[in-house]
Parts: sequence; C-alpha cells; structure tokens
Amino acid sequence: MTRRRRKAKETEAALCATTSIRVRFSEVDSMQVVWHGEYVRYFEDGREAFGRTYPGIGYMDFYRNGYTAPIVDMQLQYLSPLTVDDTATVETRYMAVAGAKLCFEYTVRRDRDGAVVARGSSMQVFVDAAGEMALNCPPFYEEWKAKWLKQ
Amino acid sequence: MTRRRRKAKETEAALCATTSIRVRFSEVDSMQVVWHGEYVRYFEDGREAFGRTYPGIGYMDFYRNGYTAPIVDMQLQYLSPLTVDDTATVETRYMAVAGAKLCFEYTVRRDRDGAVVARGSSMQVFVDAAGEMALNCPPFYEEWKAKWLKQ
Amino acid sequence: MTRRRRKAKETEAALCATTSIRVRFSEVDSMQVVWHGEYVRYFEDGREAFGRTYPGIGYMDFYRNGYTAPIVDMQLQYLSPLTVDDTATVETRYMAVAGAKLCFEYTVRRDRDGAVVARGSSMQVFVDAAGEMALNCPPFYEEWKAKWLKQ
Amino acid sequence: MTRRRRKAKETEAALCATTSIRVRFSEVDSMQVVWHGEYVRYFEDGREAFGRTYPGIGYMDFYRNGYTAPIVDMQLQYLSPLTVDDTATVETRYMAVAGAKLCFEYTVRRDRDGAVVARGSSMQVFVDAAGEMALNCPPFYEEWKAKWLKQ
Repeated sequence: MTRRRRKAKETEAALCATTSIRVRFSEVDSMQVVWHGEYVRYFEDGREAFGRTYPGIGYMDFYRNGYTAPIVDMQLQYLSPLTVDDTATVETRYMAVAGAKLCFEYTVRRDRDGAVVARGSSMQVFVDAAGEMALNCPPFYEEWKAKWLKQ
Repeated sequence: MTRRRRKAKETEAALCATTSIRVRFSEVDSMQVVWHGEYVRYFEDGREAFGRTYPGIGYMDFYRNGYTAPIVDMQLQYLSPLTVDDTATVETRYMAVAGAKLCFEYTVRRDRDGAVVARGSSMQVFVDAAGEMALNCPPFYEEWKAKWLKQ
Repeated sequence: MTRRRRKAKETEAALCATTSIRVRFSEVDSMQVVWHGEYVRYFEDGREAFGRTYPGIGYMDFYRNGYTAPIVDMQLQYLSPLTVDDTATVETRYMAVAGAKLCFEYTVRRDRDGAVVARGSSMQVFVDAAGEMALNCPPFYEEWKAKWLKQ
Repeated sequence: MTRRRRKAKETEAALCATTSIRVRFSEVDSMQVVWHGEYVRYFEDGREAFGRTYPGIGYMDFYRNGYTAPIVDMQLQYLSPLTVDDTATVETRYMAVAGAKLCFEYTVRRDRDGAVVARGSSMQVFVDAAGEMALNCPPFYEEWKAKWLKQ
C-alpha cells in the first residue's frame, strides 16, 4: 500500500458514526429472532446517525438542493441473531468511491458480547428534479466532500 | 326504526368492499400470532379495496383535488389470533356520518373457519393545501356521496 | 371526588414512564408525515420503557410465568402530525382497572413545541399455556401490583 | 456448456414461481416511491409463493422437521421505482448450489410496462434444534430436491 493510499484509508476510517438500537418485540419473528428485513431499518438508523454527525448529506439536504438519493444497491450478511431485549450498536462508515455515488458500509454489533451480528453496504445515486441521474457529483456533495474528506 | 332510518341503513349496507389477505411470515410475532400492529395495514388494504370498488375517494383522488385525508381516530378490537399461512377476508363498510368526515368500519374474518378475528373503525378528516381542516365536505366528496349514496 | 378516589388517582399518576423516539425516514408517508400505523410501534416503545421502569410485567416476564398477554383493544387519536427529523416523547401511564387486565394510556408529545400529537390506550388480557384466558390476575401480576401500587 | 450442464440449467429454469403484489399507501415514502426496505417483504412474498408451488420447503416444513432456515445473505438491486397504486409481479427462481444451502433469485416487474424494477437474491442455511448449522442437506430437503430437480 502506497503512502497516498494509506492516507486515504485513514481518512475514510475517520468518517464513521455509531448509533444504538434496542430490539423491539414487533421486530422479532416466530423463530424468536429479529426478522432479517428489520436490518434495513437498522442500516437506515445508522445512515441517519451518520448524517447528524457529518451534516450536509441527509435526506433534507438532498431535498433542499433539488435532489433525491435513492438506494440502488443493498447487501446484507447475517452472522448471528439478535433476540428480544437485545441492544446493538450500528457502525456506519463512509466509503470513498469514484463517480456520483454515496456508499456506506454497516456493522451491527450485539452489545452483550460484542459479536458482529450483521454486515452490509448500500449505494445511492443522485437524481435531479427532472428525474435524471446525475453523472457528476452535485455541488452540495462536492462541498461536503471538500469539508469532511480533505486532509 | 323508522322507514327513513331503515332505508338509510340499507344504503349503507350496500357500500361494503371485501379483500383477501394472506398472513406473511414477517407479520407473525414471537408468540406465533400476527402482531397486533399489522391489522392497521389490513384495514388499509380494506380501505384501498373500497376505493377501487367505489372510485373517487382514494388517496390519489384526495391529492388531485388538493386535499389530504389524514386519519384522526382508529379503534381496533382483537377477538382471535391469525397465524402463519392463515388467509383472511377484510370487509370495509362506509359509515354515513354528519360533517366533513370519512368513516369506515372493518371486520376481519379468518377464512378457515369464518371466525371474526378483529373489528375496528377509522375516521378521516379533510385538510386543504393551506393545512386547514375542511369544515364542510369538499366538492369531490359531495359528488361521490351523490353518486353512491343516492337512493 | 372522594379522598380515597383522589389517593388512587395520585398513585396511578406515579406509574408513568417516558421514552424518546426519533422519526425515521421510512416512517414518513407520501404526505410527508408519519404514517398513522407507526404510532402502534411508538406505543409499544412506550410500553417496553414502562416495563423497564417498573420491572415484572414485560413480555419475558409473561413468558417465564407461562402466560402471554395479547392486546385485545387499542385506540388511537391523532391530533397533529410528526414529520421527518422530529423527535417526540411517549408517556405511558398504567391504568388501574378491575379484572385480569393490563391497561395503559399513551401520550405522544412533539419535542420541538411540546404539542400533544397523539393519544391512545391499550388493553391486554392474560392467556395461559392451555390457551385459556385468565379470569383472575395471575400471581406474578398480583405481586407486581402489590409492589408498585401500594404504599 | 456440456449437455449435462445444459439439462441442469433447464431444470432449474422450470423451478420458478410468480406472485402479484399491489403497492400499499404505507409502503410509499416521502419521495413518492416504494421505500427500498419493502422489497425484502416482496421477496418474502415471492419465496412463500414458491413454497406453495413446490411444496416441502416452507417455514412450516422446516419447523416440522426440526430445523429453521435463517437467511444469511441478501442482495438487492433497484433499477426503477414503484409508486402508489402500481402492481408488480415477483418471479422467484430456485438456484441449485453446492452444500446445505437454499438459494433464490428474484425479479420484480412493474405490470404497467413490464420493466424490471428490482432484482435480488437470498441464501438460507439450515440450523437444527441444537442451534448447529447443518453441514449436509437435511433429509427432507434431499427428498424435495429428488422430487423436483430430477426427471
């Protein structure tokens, strides 16, 4: 790994937010574990916590700037179950990628033993008011990157 | 009951739509029965089926006419559980009431034995584009009533 | 109101727990406000917070004692909307009632202005392992009442 | 591709089930399109329809045979939005893979224009009553494969 690459990696590493979730009774399925679809909400909780930590790329920011940022790809891996009354911590990491995309990686850790129970990733694109997908990063996103990713 | 009252009752009785629902695995909780909150969706399914049967008061109709129709009251009674793989039928009945309101009653019947498993009701009001609650029925709703409730 | 009645009222008043909720993007509907069905989850959050504050009548307590406590009645009134990024506080109050029932009342307040946005109530009964509804309060619930409702 | 491989492929192709979904008001987010997390439910609808078409590998079959089959991996790609009142068709295809796994691929098509709006896949493993992940296919799954995958 070159010095430049390593520096970039460290910068990315810094852009990480954590949030706590508490399993709700209604999220647990008949097998007594959290239903796999609920993790999509946990990832959303993580993304929103990230937006509060590094302001400027939340849903309302997209909206105010005339864009939406729909999710075009989502991946989830389930390693261990969460059960009723469990609490967990969602880590959301910004992933620097080429092009007009917004990518995050997620790690969900069970609080009682620290075990990673799920991992995942999401990719968003930017769509303007005319419904066209942006080929270049919108100005507000360039500004956000300049602010938070600069060394 | 007067002749007039009875006639009104019969008219109401005619304004009823049914729709089928199939319990999803994700709707069943750790007690092996459908989680009570899912019935709010079943009622919504019923209301949307009603809107398709008696066109003119669906969400898109409200929207096109510059109104929203938020729910201001909902009541649910649970009589018997639904379990995984159950199918049920939701009956949605229009309730004629005074004032600028839209009221429905719901009955959910389990298909395997015909038992009523839940009952409920909802009340909606009309809110215009300025965010004001309508004191009189909006014209499109008066037209709908003239079409479907007339004897 | 007699002195006895008033004293009972004060005791009830003390059995109240509050919890905070933050509106999620996925809870907001196409009218830009929290979908009415989400409040069933907010009430559940409130009930679980109550269970942590006054331990002994949570889902796991029912389970360990061989009972379930299904909700048989739920009522919701909607007074004002919550929108994306709103936070709110759910107050859950224990309601003393005759018979083998567990009743709560809920008040949801919007944090930014203190407005009550929703109210509601729920009633639960106790069902034993044989599927029979308990006519008398199960012993563990009597113990809970003796601990928390008496001075 | 050898003749044997091709034959296997054709057999797989036959193991496909379709089911219809109708977008609910509550599934649409504030951007006026179906929230991305709802597709996890659409895939579940597809998987359950598959289970009814090719009986023997539904949740109740797992349960009766002393197993659960938790999802360990899920992937979703979003190509185009669904909006309120859209109907769509979910195609669920069985994917033959080595090892004690159950893999499906999903295609969601919008009915009004036939466009593919989402694709995805899921992988399940088998966990026995002792909580151990099965290294070999459970007998009931071998029987299912013998019945449906062989000519």
